Amino acid sequence: MPGFQCISLLTDYGLADGFVASCHGVLARLAPAVRVIDVTHLVPRGDIRRGAAVLAQTLPSLPTGVHIAVVDPGVGTPRRSLALAVGDHILVGPDNGLLPPAAQTLGASLRAYEITSGAAMLEPVSHTFHGRDVYAPAAARVAVGSMTVADLGPELASDSLVRLPTPLVSAGDGWAQAEVVTVDGFGNVQTALHADRLAAAGFALGDPAEISAGGVRHPVLYAETFGSVPWGTLVLYVDSAGYVAVARNGGDAARLLGARPGGTVRIRAGSSGATEVHGHEIRPPSP
Amino acid sequence: MPGFQCISLLTDYGLADGFVASCHGVLARLAPAVRVIDVTHLVPRGDIRRGAAVLAQTLPSLPTGVHIAVVDPGVGTPRRSLALAVGDHILVGPDNGLLPPAAQTLGASLRAYEITSGAAMLEPVSHTFHGRDVYAPAAARVAVGSMTVADLGPELASDSLVRLPTPLVSAGDGWAQAEVVTVDGFGNVQTALHADRLAAAGFALGDPAEISAGGVRHPVLYAETFGSVPWGTLVLYVDSAGYVAVARNGGDAARLLGARPGGTVRIRAGSSGATEVHGHEIRPPSP
Amino acid sequence: MPGFQCISLLTDYGLADGFVASCHGVLARLAPAVRVIDVTHLVPRGDIRRGAAVLAQTLPSLPTGVHIAVVDPGVGTPRRSLALAVGDHILVGPDNGLLPPAAQTLGASLRAYEITSGAAMLEPVSHTFHGRDVYAPAAARVAVGSMTVADLGPELASDSLVRLPTPLVSAGDGWAQAEVVTVDGFGNVQTALHADRLAAAGFALGDPAEISAGGVRHPVLYAETFGSVPWGTLVLYVDSAGYVAVARNGGDAARLLGARPGGTVRIRAGSSGATEVHGHEIRPPSP
Repeated sequence: MPGFQCISLLTDYGLADGFVASCHGVLARLAPAVRVIDVTHLVPRGDIRRGAAVLAQTLPSLPTGVHIAVVDPGVGTPRRSLALAVGDHILVGPDNGLLPPAAQTLGASLRAYEITSGAAMLEPVSHTFHGRDVYAPAAARVAVGSMTVADLGPELASDSLVRLPTPLVSAGDGWAQAEVVTVDGFGNVQTALHADRLAAAGFALGDPAEISAGGVRHPVLYAETFGSVPWGTLVLYVDSAGYVAVARNGGDAARLLGARPGGTVRIRAGSSGATEVHGHEIRPPSP
Repeated sequence: MPGFQCISLLTDYGLADGFVASCHGVLARLAPAVRVIDVTHLVPRGDIRRGAAVLAQTLPSLPTGVHIAVVDPGVGTPRRSLALAVGDHILVGPDNGLLPPAAQTLGASLRAYEITSGAAMLEPVSHTFHGRDVYAPAAARVAVGSMTVADLGPELASDSLVRLPTPLVSAGDGWAQAEVVTVDGFGNVQTALHADRLAAAGFALGDPAEISAGGVRHPVLYAETFGSVPWGTLVLYVDSAGYVAVARNGGDAARLLGARPGGTVRIRAGSSGATEVHGHEIRPPSP
Repeated sequence: MPGFQCISLLTDYGLADGFVASCHGVLARLAPAVRVIDVTHLVPRGDIRRGAAVLAQTLPSLPTGVHIAVVDPGVGTPRRSLALAVGDHILVGPDNGLLPPAAQTLGASLRAYEITSGAAMLEPVSHTFHGRDVYAPAAARVAVGSMTVADLGPELASDSLVRLPTPLVSAGDGWAQAEVVTVDGFGNVQTALHADRLAAAGFALGDPAEISAGGVRHPVLYAETFGSVPWGTLVLYVDSAGYVAVARNGGDAARLLGARPGGTVRIRAGSSGATEVHGHEIRPPSP
């Protein structure tokens, strides 16, 4: 039975305990020839939205494989365990909204299964550590081809999956506002605003605009990349999934704007003056 | 000569320097076909007790293999270097108490060897980096089967090994108190109290009790898992090694109790009233 | 075409986003049989000097391979992308000073190439994520042998490479001062002072001296290792690359001295008295 060469693992387990290693141990025992890639284990505890955003951003760069994601504040409650077949990928994790954004990023049709088969799990299943006892072994068995995703349990209607609330987005002639989906460690701000929506609101590449996250308004340029704006300048650009992000050439856009996940950024066309360069916040590259 | 498919690595080296990578480099050079699992490298510097607890908790989930543990504030002093053969596992590390709790968890007979053979090490051995120069190469040679554990050096009497002080535990009719062995990143508190001791003190599954760690007394239920208690409630449960742990359904037990490794938790039978649910501290799962 | 069994990866991407995993994903897709070693991903953002120091310290312990280093505040600007062939190793990263110190540590002749070939990259190349789109794919292709380093682009004059400023060092009869290159997580201080320079200034092994980093002067012994000085005592020793480092037996030299990367340590011969042991700062090994 054909399987997969790669398993990836995203959790909120942190790196200070042995939880991640326990999952790796299960994978090494059940799928010794399969490569394992750690996506991140530093999702803030229980922050499903952040876990979903990182998974969705990273999945397109990963090989075809089985992808385990465990941010699971409901472990021990009756929430379902899922395996999603999406194109050439399998996603495995709790039914709490964590997986659908990544599945959507793949842009392929989805079949959903509930993991119920005892043959997929490590018995006895603990009530608190499904990463080790349910998700890792199920993923390993699918990866080595000893079980198919359909063997894991009954198929589910895809519209029965728990989904995160749709992020707020609104736009009109010359303005748009959108929820901040996530902020990366460089201070780049990913919004829920699709580029099509920004175009419909009248924005074109090269246009100057203003942006705020509730505080001071800052000039911003709508450009292909921050490589095309002056040092220190904010730029709106479209990420590889088609959504509008905000970066700052040589700086930290989120810090300048005060933007946080779940917050709102407001964009309006035009600019009150010349592009302001906030020199005192610019950290030039080290020598 | 038969070897091992897996080497695991636990240290207090942190992740910001290249120390862990240097050990991985040695393993990759000497045992290129062996899989390496990082247990954790975030043991607080020199905290042998914490390192021992994480290793003991994690080892049962790891494949048969050679397990390196280096929390070694005595590096450069005459403390011995050990290789312990325990069942199908080999444990490698300094003779300072770090390894015996993990060996005991495996529940198998133990043979101890001192690593003295120059053939096992990378010459010249530095005085400060035995992870790279002693433990990693010795583990790699045993894993690939070019040396047996008995080739590493002379056998030692197992009662000559340095051991951590036995954690304090006491119990009587309807009460128990025990040292906190460790706290994980979710705030679960592992105690040194064995379930048999709790049973002997008259506690049965389903019993209400009270618990404190020196501060306020909180109601707690003795249950199979925290899945069986209301949201926000503390639960006493027995971990896979047979010891009593304290968790909080949907919360952080250690923070609520003020429990810390090395501190004491006190449990007494009965409850002063209905189970108190500390609603304001409950963080419900994200949507 | 012969390739390499190992790829290493050092970045300032942090561990909380999926950036490192994206690079691993590219490597797994293009070089599925090659082992990947993470050096560190916790270089402070944009701190080229720190990245260069960790890479130079770690590289001698790594297997022959292709070594990717990405600390790249100039990404998106016209800075060049390099591949350096140094002995049996290939180093890949931006032309900003990050790679030369590691190349120098290898002590072999160097040939430099600019990575310009579209065949080496993942098209389209983003403006902001060259780790994923340029360095990882180029490294993978060289590792599997589908491209040689000379296929990546034109050869460069090695004296055209951007280099970090030479750290300040001065010495005279009975004294020396030198820039602090880096401090590791144990508080050991690596200086830019070569042992030959210290010898020329009249220092011999076993000599007492005094050291300061701008604050209080502390007695220090010039010794082979800190294993040869009393507990709590500072020691000057020569690291494996021939440079003078400062450690403290059982303690944190950097904290005691107040030494920081980029700062200066001053050493002078002789001692004002008996070796002072700072008992109150000594943290003896855990039991």
